[in-house]
Amino acid sequence: MSEAESSPPEGAGTRAAAESSRGADTLGSVGELDALARIIPRLPPSAATVLGPGDDAAVLAAADGRYVVTTDMMIHGPDFRLAWSSLHDLGFKAAATNLSDVAAMGARPTALVVALAAPAETPVSDLEALADGLREACAELAPGCGVVGGDLSVSPTLTIAVTAFGDLEGREPVRRDGARVGDVVAVSGSLGSAAEGLALLFEHAVDNEGVPDAGAAARLRSEHPGAVADQLTPRPPIADGVAAALAGATSMLDLSDGLALDARRIARASGVSLDLDAAAVCMAAGVDASRLPHVIVGGEDHSLLATFPPATGPGQSLPGGFRVIGRVVEAGDDGPALLVGGRVFSARGGWDSFDEWSGGAG
Amino acid sequence: MSEAESSPPEGAGTRAAAESSRGADTLGSVGELDALARIIPRLPPSAATVLGPGDDAAVLAAADGRYVVTTDMMIHGPDFRLAWSSLHDLGFKAAATNLSDVAAMGARPTALVVALAAPAETPVSDLEALADGLREACAELAPGCGVVGGDLSVSPTLTIAVTAFGDLEGREPVRRDGARVGDVVAVSGSLGSAAEGLALLFEHAVDNEGVPDAGAAARLRSEHPGAVADQLTPRPPIADGVAAALAGATSMLDLSDGLALDARRIARASGVSLDLDAAAVCMAAGVDASRLPHVIVGGEDHSLLATFPPATGPGQSLPGGFRVIGRVVEAGDDGPALLVGGRVFSARGGWDSFDEWSGGAG
Repeated sequence: MSEAESSPPEGAGTRAAAESSRGADTLGSVGELDALARIIPRLPPSAATVLGPGDDAAVLAAADGRYVVTTDMMIHGPDFRLAWSSLHDLGFKAAATNLSDVAAMGARPTALVVALAAPAETPVSDLEALADGLREACAELAPGCGVVGGDLSVSPTLTIAVTAFGDLEGREPVRRDGARVGDVVAVSGSLGSAAEGLALLFEHAVDNEGVPDAGAAARLRSEHPGAVADQLTPRPPIADGVAAALAGATSMLDLSDGLALDARRIARASGVSLDLDAAAVCMAAGVDASRLPHVIVGGEDHSLLATFPPATGPGQSLPGGFRVIGRVVEAGDDGPALLVGGRVFSARGGWDSFDEWSGGAG
Repeated sequence: MSEAESSPPEGAGTRAAAESSRGADTLGSVGELDALARIIPRLPPSAATVLGPGDDAAVLAAADGRYVVTTDMMIHGPDFRLAWSSLHDLGFKAAATNLSDVAAMGARPTALVVALAAPAETPVSDLEALADGLREACAELAPGCGVVGGDLSVSPTLTIAVTAFGDLEGREPVRRDGARVGDVVAVSGSLGSAAEGLALLFEHAVDNEGVPDAGAAARLRSEHPGAVADQLTPRPPIADGVAAALAGATSMLDLSDGLALDARRIARASGVSLDLDAAAVCMAAGVDASRLPHVIVGGEDHSLLATFPPATGPGQSLPGGFRVIGRVVEAGDDGPALLVGGRVFSARGGWDSFDEWSGGAG
């Protein structure tokens, strides 16, 4: 409609009618090929494209002689509620969460392929909005990265599967197992905010029966823009992945399952313990001490957690948005662990999608 | 159970009991991480692995400086019925159909990533069977190709999204737009058989109410092993993709949507017409002339359709399993078209998943 409104008055009525008719199109009514024809022009191009969409497969450049690959699926019900997330939000989040896995290897994201399955009654305009979300996430978080291929299907359950690719540009990948005693532990991006957003949504963006409610979600979004946006449209610090690699990060990962669970992954893989400073964690998260437990177990920030060699001289600073939140220490008698202020943090913590799922889609 | 049966008698009862208890495990009861721990060891390794599963992303070798990428999703309902396909069948087919897209570029398949979403009540043993199917397809059709990463989620709708990678080994990709007047048209693999298998299943593997029936499907499979197997566990001639490229194929694609629709794709992309010889098509398909229309419109064979330069001397033969089924001719006044015996074949033909879907999953 906005296109029709901005056109000259002559013929605007006809165009609005045509737009309105197109607005009633669904995936089932127009079919896969026609829907794709409307989606593909909205997808971002990739600078790594050798051969783009339209053949059996795409061909991508890998001047480095290697490429980084990760895949992640978002499913209506376990992963999102349509009363809270628009299709535009979902496209943005699907791109952002996969880009952060590429960034966590110290790689520059180059391309995505997207397999999308949606109910037959899904408006094609919703699929266009999803494409817009993918495009805007790539443009904002990883310029040059684009969608080089995909698949569109009908399914009773809206499902978005993204596979993302990255270029190491001659560097070694930054793995989880390289943290060394004496390294500093640092984070770039939000901490606990996405989980706070989810808690707010479950508390306030539901009706009296606890069913997700779109109107309440819209009000909440305007009242708590930070946390709710961090949950629904995360903006991880993608460029800081390459910056960390260039600065000599010894280990790195994407904080998808919460600081407690993910920090333990680095500890176990590296055979060390990570000792977090409570005050530094709270400062990095922008919260007071009472929120520390929530910050440590809350998932889905998709921020970058990394370890760096200790400063070797005055004035040495961490790259990009990284802030120190702790130190790498020797593993104790019970093996690698997460410590906070020198004491073992034993709460299980972290996110397992099966535990949290109520079975209701919303 | 077979593991328990082959163990010494001492303790076999205890082991069988433990196996039986494991057999009752479901994705929902054991959770994503424990299910993955049981699936991952069954997945085939990839010879291209630089860094395998266990980090935020995998790293793959691309000595060629480029890599081939394709993605495809299989969804319970539109794409398969669980009364007809075991999880082992689905794993095999998901691998085979993606491998054929890589092969159709003239590339050697190197790796897969697999995003799997299944209902919480899915037995973990079913997920193990799916992994076995993936492994056996790679071993049989594309040795050296393996699974380098994935994602496991819960969903009301069983969904398998595979992204496949390939190595061009220094060759140019074989596209759809290179067919030239005078080239021969050739096919490697089955023709119309997968569609015949689907028709047999819909006709005979259903109960009196038309609902897919597992017992009837098992009987049908033993009576018509070729066609039903070509539908449920296709074995496309993957190695013939590289063979065709080495032999100078000018265009190639994977016959996923039927000979009529896919041959027209080569015709349009190349600006030529493809003239099929009815007798040669029937001979390649192994059927008599009465079946020609079915052979031409039936989809899902995942065979390779290619064009090759005309023979330049006596004794020159096509590579691998390719058989000549026609010639490339100049496009007529109405533009690129599919001809059979010199006459335009105008039936729409081909497969659009939305047209065929009844909405029942089965």
